[in-house]
Amino acid sequence: MTNEPAHTATAVYLTFAELTALLERIFVRHGVSPSNARLLAENCAACERDGSHSHGIFRIPGYVSSLNSGWVDGAAIPVVEDTGGAFIRVDAKNGFAQPALAAARDLLVDRAREYGIALLAVRRSHHFSALWPDVEPFAEEGLVALSFVNSFACVVPHGGRKPVFGTNPIAFAAPRNGEPPFVFDQASSAMANGDVQIAAREGRLLPEGMGVDRDGNPTRDPNAVLDGGALVTFGGHKGSTIALMVEILGAALTGGYFSGEFDWSEFRGAQTPKTGQLFIVIGPERGGNGVFRERVSHITALVREAGQERLPGDRRFETRARSERQRIPLARTDYDMLSKLA
Amino acid sequence: MTNEPAHTATAVYLTFAELTALLERIFVRHGVSPSNARLLAENCAACERDGSHSHGIFRIPGYVSSLNSGWVDGAAIPVVEDTGGAFIRVDAKNGFAQPALAAARDLLVDRAREYGIALLAVRRSHHFSALWPDVEPFAEEGLVALSFVNSFACVVPHGGRKPVFGTNPIAFAAPRNGEPPFVFDQASSAMANGDVQIAAREGRLLPEGMGVDRDGNPTRDPNAVLDGGALVTFGGHKGSTIALMVEILGAALTGGYFSGEFDWSEFRGAQTPKTGQLFIVIGPERGGNGVFRERVSHITALVREAGQERLPGDRRFETRARSERQRIPLARTDYDMLSKLA
Repeated sequence: MTNEPAHTATAVYLTFAELTALLERIFVRHGVSPSNARLLAENCAACERDGSHSHGIFRIPGYVSSLNSGWVDGAAIPVVEDTGGAFIRVDAKNGFAQPALAAARDLLVDRAREYGIALLAVRRSHHFSALWPDVEPFAEEGLVALSFVNSFACVVPHGGRKPVFGTNPIAFAAPRNGEPPFVFDQASSAMANGDVQIAAREGRLLPEGMGVDRDGNPTRDPNAVLDGGALVTFGGHKGSTIALMVEILGAALTGGYFSGEFDWSEFRGAQTPKTGQLFIVIGPERGGNGVFRERVSHITALVREAGQERLPGDRRFETRARSERQRIPLARTDYDMLSKLA
Repeated sequence: MTNEPAHTATAVYLTFAELTALLERIFVRHGVSPSNARLLAENCAACERDGSHSHGIFRIPGYVSSLNSGWVDGAAIPVVEDTGGAFIRVDAKNGFAQPALAAARDLLVDRAREYGIALLAVRRSHHFSALWPDVEPFAEEGLVALSFVNSFACVVPHGGRKPVFGTNPIAFAAPRNGEPPFVFDQASSAMANGDVQIAAREGRLLPEGMGVDRDGNPTRDPNAVLDGGALVTFGGHKGSTIALMVEILGAALTGGYFSGEFDWSEFRGAQTPKTGQLFIVIGPERGGNGVFRERVSHITALVREAGQERLPGDRRFETRARSERQRIPLARTDYDMLSKLA
């Protein structure tokens, strides 16, 4: 993974607002409703700003291709279903997951504060971005959030030959005291699918032990992984178990499709997985000691003191600060690509 | 890990009720109240019955040693604190975690059914057993359960030199259709501490890449790991991140101690970690499609079809069935040890 775009010498620098506006025009031009376009543009710009390049502007051609195929409805109006307790559902109506979350978010926060914990089950949703932008804002409001989302079958179960799981990330966010929240977003696969795509584009081999080809044999060739092959899970059988839990929580519990279940074969160019997404949001102030933020800061400090140099989120927050000082750098070729699509 | 005790030729076979009664006498004799003794005995006998040997009768000397040291209060009466929503707390009063769960369990199930999701935060609790016995019964009632428990500092963060984390398991249970629930219980460490102890007792080397010695150098010697050394996390930095999340959920959120925080140095023989434990219990029937059990059965079947030979829980359910047919085999030496303690 690179933190700097490849061609700094010819980079274009945009503010967050400028990049968001540019991306918004692209989404609207390809059939996304204005309010949904705003959400997707902010989400994608935030990934680019934070150096989450595999989910930043790199994804724009995939969004456009999926929208043009008719597979995903950019103008979908999600329907919130309040089951009357701490369990809220959203039917994303074949639209993107981020507008579905936005539609239910206030209710979810209210219920988490009212009951101490609440759940949001999103179904018929397309998630094509990083997961941390979904959970980080909860921690900024003092809440703890967990999210699980399955994707499309590109990961073999441990010891298996056929892809069943998506990259199936888990994201988690918890507030800290006087510092940014502790946030992680990690795929259950050995690496993120977006990073395989980037390696293929840049002609780089994958590290050892990341993927298999279409015959189930280990390979370091990103194209062999993308073309009928698959990734493996991180951490052997334990990562495979986590990927399976994500299918259960993200899809079985929400009413969404499993990663290997939806059929996009008739939608040429479709790239956005149509699955489900689960959120669990907790109000930590009931947690008995009234010092939750301090405690999260304390344990992350202990991990640093023990010698772990980087914690999840560190690099993102550093890159974000740099982007805010210097604006967001885009390679000239990427900027031209975006301008053409807008 | 062995599924059969080492000395089958000289084994003693007990029914579950007989083993439970024997263990109950041991607990009562060492200061555990009768109702708590019943819970701990059933829990330990269930581990032995299911072939979870590192948490079965192997643990009894540790329980006795901890009780004799005065570190844990076997007669503690847990206090349930109802915060009035879906967030329940229990102060375990320096007793074992299983009685704390038992005290709050009915309320937790009621709230999960009433609101769709509920949380139980246990603090000042000692967890010295496997985690699956805590979650499996929820799935037998049709609920989904997650649990997180931290333990004592014996695991280094990724790239670090000093232990901060416990083995920090996560357990998960979900009901299936016409078959036992899907249940897993996996440590965030590369292996379970109990299995290191068993390897040390049996004079076996550990597999590569499981632990470090007291200087932070990789070692396969279980005694070097136990004597000032540490385990590493499974799956590199991703497993380390999960271990950190378990500290946050199991301890920061409950008001319990972190794994490296409690001081048992003045309690000679103390072995039971005094931390916290979190449960999240979900009523899946609100999940939108009314076929949750069928869906869980379906995805686990797909994983088998893809070639993963064993799923979490498979071996336990097989061993349980054999124990129910043939009774529970104990090595003669173990049986004699237990009889002496009873």
